[in-house]
Amino acid sequence: MKKWVPIASGLLAGFAAATLSFADFSSNNTKTEAANASNKSNAEKVYVPFGKKDDYYLFASGGHSGQMFIYGVPSMRKIRTIPVFSPDSATGYGFDEHSKKMMGDYTWGDLHHPAFSETNGDYDGKWMFATDVGNSRAAVVDLKTFTTKDILNVPNTAGPHCAAFVTENTEYMFLPTRFAVPLGQKYESLDDYSQKYRGVMSAVTFDEKNVKLNIAYQVALPPWSYDLSDAGKKSSKDWAVMTTYNTEEATTTMEVNASQADRDYIVLFNWKELEKMVKEGKYEDVGGQKMIFPEKEKGGIYLVPVAKSPHGVDVTPDGKYFIASGKLAPAMTVFSFEKAFKAIEKKEFAGDRNGIPILKYESVMEREVNPENALGPLHTQFDDKGMAYTTMFISSEIVKWDPKTGKTLDRVPVQYSPGHSVAAEGDTVAPDGKWLIALNKIAKDTYLSVGPSHPESMQLIDISGKMKVVQSAPVDPEPHYAQMIKADKIKTINVYPKDPNNKDAVYKQNETKIVRNGNEVHVYGIAMRSRFIFDHAAKRPDVIEVNQGDHVFIHLTNIDFDEDITHGFAINSYDLNMEVQPGQTNTMEFTADKAGTFPIYCTNFCSALHQEMNGYFLVKPKN
Amino acid sequence: MKKWVPIASGLLAGFAAATLSFADFSSNNTKTEAANASNKSNAEKVYVPFGKKDDYYLFASGGHSGQMFIYGVPSMRKIRTIPVFSPDSATGYGFDEHSKKMMGDYTWGDLHHPAFSETNGDYDGKWMFATDVGNSRAAVVDLKTFTTKDILNVPNTAGPHCAAFVTENTEYMFLPTRFAVPLGQKYESLDDYSQKYRGVMSAVTFDEKNVKLNIAYQVALPPWSYDLSDAGKKSSKDWAVMTTYNTEEATTTMEVNASQADRDYIVLFNWKELEKMVKEGKYEDVGGQKMIFPEKEKGGIYLVPVAKSPHGVDVTPDGKYFIASGKLAPAMTVFSFEKAFKAIEKKEFAGDRNGIPILKYESVMEREVNPENALGPLHTQFDDKGMAYTTMFISSEIVKWDPKTGKTLDRVPVQYSPGHSVAAEGDTVAPDGKWLIALNKIAKDTYLSVGPSHPESMQLIDISGKMKVVQSAPVDPEPHYAQMIKADKIKTINVYPKDPNNKDAVYKQNETKIVRNGNEVHVYGIAMRSRFIFDHAAKRPDVIEVNQGDHVFIHLTNIDFDEDITHGFAINSYDLNMEVQPGQTNTMEFTADKAGTFPIYCTNFCSALHQEMNGYFLVKPKN
Repeated sequence: MKKWVPIASGLLAGFAAATLSFADFSSNNTKTEAANASNKSNAEKVYVPFGKKDDYYLFASGGHSGQMFIYGVPSMRKIRTIPVFSPDSATGYGFDEHSKKMMGDYTWGDLHHPAFSETNGDYDGKWMFATDVGNSRAAVVDLKTFTTKDILNVPNTAGPHCAAFVTENTEYMFLPTRFAVPLGQKYESLDDYSQKYRGVMSAVTFDEKNVKLNIAYQVALPPWSYDLSDAGKKSSKDWAVMTTYNTEEATTTMEVNASQADRDYIVLFNWKELEKMVKEGKYEDVGGQKMIFPEKEKGGIYLVPVAKSPHGVDVTPDGKYFIASGKLAPAMTVFSFEKAFKAIEKKEFAGDRNGIPILKYESVMEREVNPENALGPLHTQFDDKGMAYTTMFISSEIVKWDPKTGKTLDRVPVQYSPGHSVAAEGDTVAPDGKWLIALNKIAKDTYLSVGPSHPESMQLIDISGKMKVVQSAPVDPEPHYAQMIKADKIKTINVYPKDPNNKDAVYKQNETKIVRNGNEVHVYGIAMRSRFIFDHAAKRPDVIEVNQGDHVFIHLTNIDFDEDITHGFAINSYDLNMEVQPGQTNTMEFTADKAGTFPIYCTNFCSALHQEMNGYFLVKPKN
Repeated sequence: MKKWVPIASGLLAGFAAATLSFADFSSNNTKTEAANASNKSNAEKVYVPFGKKDDYYLFASGGHSGQMFIYGVPSMRKIRTIPVFSPDSATGYGFDEHSKKMMGDYTWGDLHHPAFSETNGDYDGKWMFATDVGNSRAAVVDLKTFTTKDILNVPNTAGPHCAAFVTENTEYMFLPTRFAVPLGQKYESLDDYSQKYRGVMSAVTFDEKNVKLNIAYQVALPPWSYDLSDAGKKSSKDWAVMTTYNTEEATTTMEVNASQADRDYIVLFNWKELEKMVKEGKYEDVGGQKMIFPEKEKGGIYLVPVAKSPHGVDVTPDGKYFIASGKLAPAMTVFSFEKAFKAIEKKEFAGDRNGIPILKYESVMEREVNPENALGPLHTQFDDKGMAYTTMFISSEIVKWDPKTGKTLDRVPVQYSPGHSVAAEGDTVAPDGKWLIALNKIAKDTYLSVGPSHPESMQLIDISGKMKVVQSAPVDPEPHYAQMIKADKIKTINVYPKDPNNKDAVYKQNETKIVRNGNEVHVYGIAMRSRFIFDHAAKRPDVIEVNQGDHVFIHLTNIDFDEDITHGFAINSYDLNMEVQPGQTNTMEFTADKAGTFPIYCTNFCSALHQEMNGYFLVKPKN
């Protein structure tokens, strides 16, 4: 492994340049103008007229919005926000009983890397997983309804940044922590960092039948930061890889101290081996979790040296290689799984770190790729011919290259500072080619100004021939990563089917009722165009009257079994709103602590008489 | 006034049709295909290549998202979400001290009609106002920074739906309630509705210097629903108009009972007269508000009969007419301000309702306009030639017509069920023409399916010649209304200037400090690429250590005075996140109730070393 020339100074200069406006970018401008010479054809490429639909769904991380953003490709029109880790006023997510319970006490999230469920290494269009760096959670979204179904709190960890990525048949997703914390996240002095802090990786399974996420086991890795990761494919399917930084184990001023060592590591692990250890009881119970300590239990985890502070690591579609990109080194390094397996078999180790064997760089490395003047390589995606596309954060471009030869094939400037990129079906065993989207961190003055803080930017690149940026779409913070799936793989339902086992559901007007048990009031009501009926036998069927202090449950079923006829249920000045999609039953639970007269109304425009879809919530004062 | 034929049955049939998919819309399809015959040119019309910017900003209501959505026109790309009435995980709105205080205990909102501040009847690009139907609030957004600056809680009212609209020089915005409630919103039986409930209108002023919204006075109108409104212009500038429904004073099953009467009313009021009454003490104190009772204080308010359950009322750019659209009557009615003024002068009244004089329909009406087969007229916008564009909710189209003659000039189908539409500079004394956007309530299968509930849809219409739909943009719920302003009218700042008077701000590394007073801890820290410094003199300047139970204030200043370099500040697993835009100081206040070790990190991608921008928050256990 050659000694990398530190590029921190060039990097900072590069970043300073990246804060200039496009008016200042004469060289980039020239390239961009050339790329845009035929605006006419770019316009046509991205235009989807009424009556036609987009070819792909893009599921983009919403970053610290805590949500997921759904776009159509190639139009780059945003179709939907799916609330995941943060409450959502629009849909009442975090207000109705089910989502409120899922959210617990948390009111924000930082959604990083979304991942589709896979069957035989291909997106199957059934589920979408994501993780929360803000409050250390994982979630699953049902793609039949585009709603979040389960949220898992992950203990012993602090920000599962480098997840989710799933194994070939969705056996696991691995959630390594971005920050090391003491086990149980208890208080320990930073002076004892190397002894008492750990970087815990969680192996999470998904129980499809019960729609539940579970932690199968955890691994107490060294107290480093785990950045990005990928699962193996085909011949490497039992393995996964993760990048690390701060193997220096620094505890302050990280931008200097965590960039000292000339190399960090790729963690390479065999999840079948780890699974076996768990079966054999080779773990300790840590706060109810099965924790594997790799310094004690050998044979599942290995380290591969890599140029300092790598960011992305990506497995090629054929599963033969993994490519690490060194954000502080100007190169991509191609490693061979086969070589790694051989080295492991022969126990060709160069010592260990924290009890984990280190493979020799030379015996695993296939080739180092260093395109001229390309700076800040971060992440790599692939097309249908196995060609690699790497984002260059500092030099603000996408470089296309051949992993088999290392040869640079094409380059295109993007505006500006791309983090990840995403290719059509890019993380599968069979990418589609056609489209690549650069997820840019900085838009600067690309769009109309919206104050000191600007949107991020996604740029659609036609990769069917010479790469060409054909559209720039502003985006709310912050698309850390995305996956793009063929539209016909997603099979949504039009309405929620009747559920005879749901004791909260009422499907007929004459079954609506208000039931009182002491100070607990249960409303079994319906929403329909264009009225609420809470108690069909009452003088005013659309009025709920309770006593101050009553504990109120409003079970509401939307009996409009028509596509897109969603109703809302809000109580004015009571800070309550939820939605019921066609056929859906939802429950709102609250204490009527405020006496008075409060209008109830439908928040989702549902018909010409939507404005008349209202009633009253009357709360009789205590005395 | 002719007796309107009830169209409820036709209306419902129309709506049922509107729930079909576009595949079923053979007649509409034919029209649409014709409109789209030249897709090439449509594509070019909306395509804004990199290096160019949109011509207009669109500020769209985010409805029950509680937020405001900013788009560029003609690209229809969404540039920004401005959090207004709901917390926002992405920007930490509702988490930092200032926004948390503004929000109070509310966690959602239902933002309806946005309105720009005006100077001489023209948008001046300085402020944007909006109201919350969900929790009865008003807000002001600063267009220098695109951030919400003040929120006003409006008592005695329940959903100021038909606001905000501002007078010619932003003297007032008027917030009439959508739902009648008892004064003080106290508990009263619905049996006493007509006697004890009121529909209160609030006159709100904006103190530009102190950036504060205030209630100047309120008016206790009859217990009706107030739907939409508009301010007068030029010769009618001292006046405003509002539509009503439920003048039947029904208290249940509104979609039937509030549609019984053949006519409802336009409320016409002179705010200069009301202002005078307040000056003369002609009001009563109701919970601290100056309440005018129109049955006692005459001369400021009049009723104009209008076809049943009207929805929109819009003043023509020349200020001479107001146009009411009857959602349950197939016509637009043009009324003359001049005729109304004369009738008032001559006291030509047809009795009164609830003590408010009724003007004779015939003496105010200028003309009834009833385009053939156009059903469900809702709202009207105007172009640069004074021509009117009315949305037809039931027949799903825009009708262009001449208010001076009533002649239908053009029609274009939209997909589907438009509520409002918005024209370029459409609510000013001098609209621009060029573009009109239909804000459609139902998208159905226009876009890729995202489950039982679909996005709404905004369609951009080129009105420079024959009307032509050129783009369909899906949108999150729910664009009730929008205003469109020339891009060059908005003057944003690039960075927040240093504020020497802000005692929480620290601009130099060596001024950072942590100050303890008993169990109150104040951190005066900075964020910069790529580190936090909380206490420059500490062994670890990026670590905050407190005792469990401490009351913590984190004052953080972003000292990167560079456009678009926003930093975030999150404490992992502590459910806390806020942002600091370039130059900005923000404060987060909380109690450290949970002991342990919690990473601090920057949530806004800010540089190549963003990933290293972190520290620790250590909370020592109590015992």
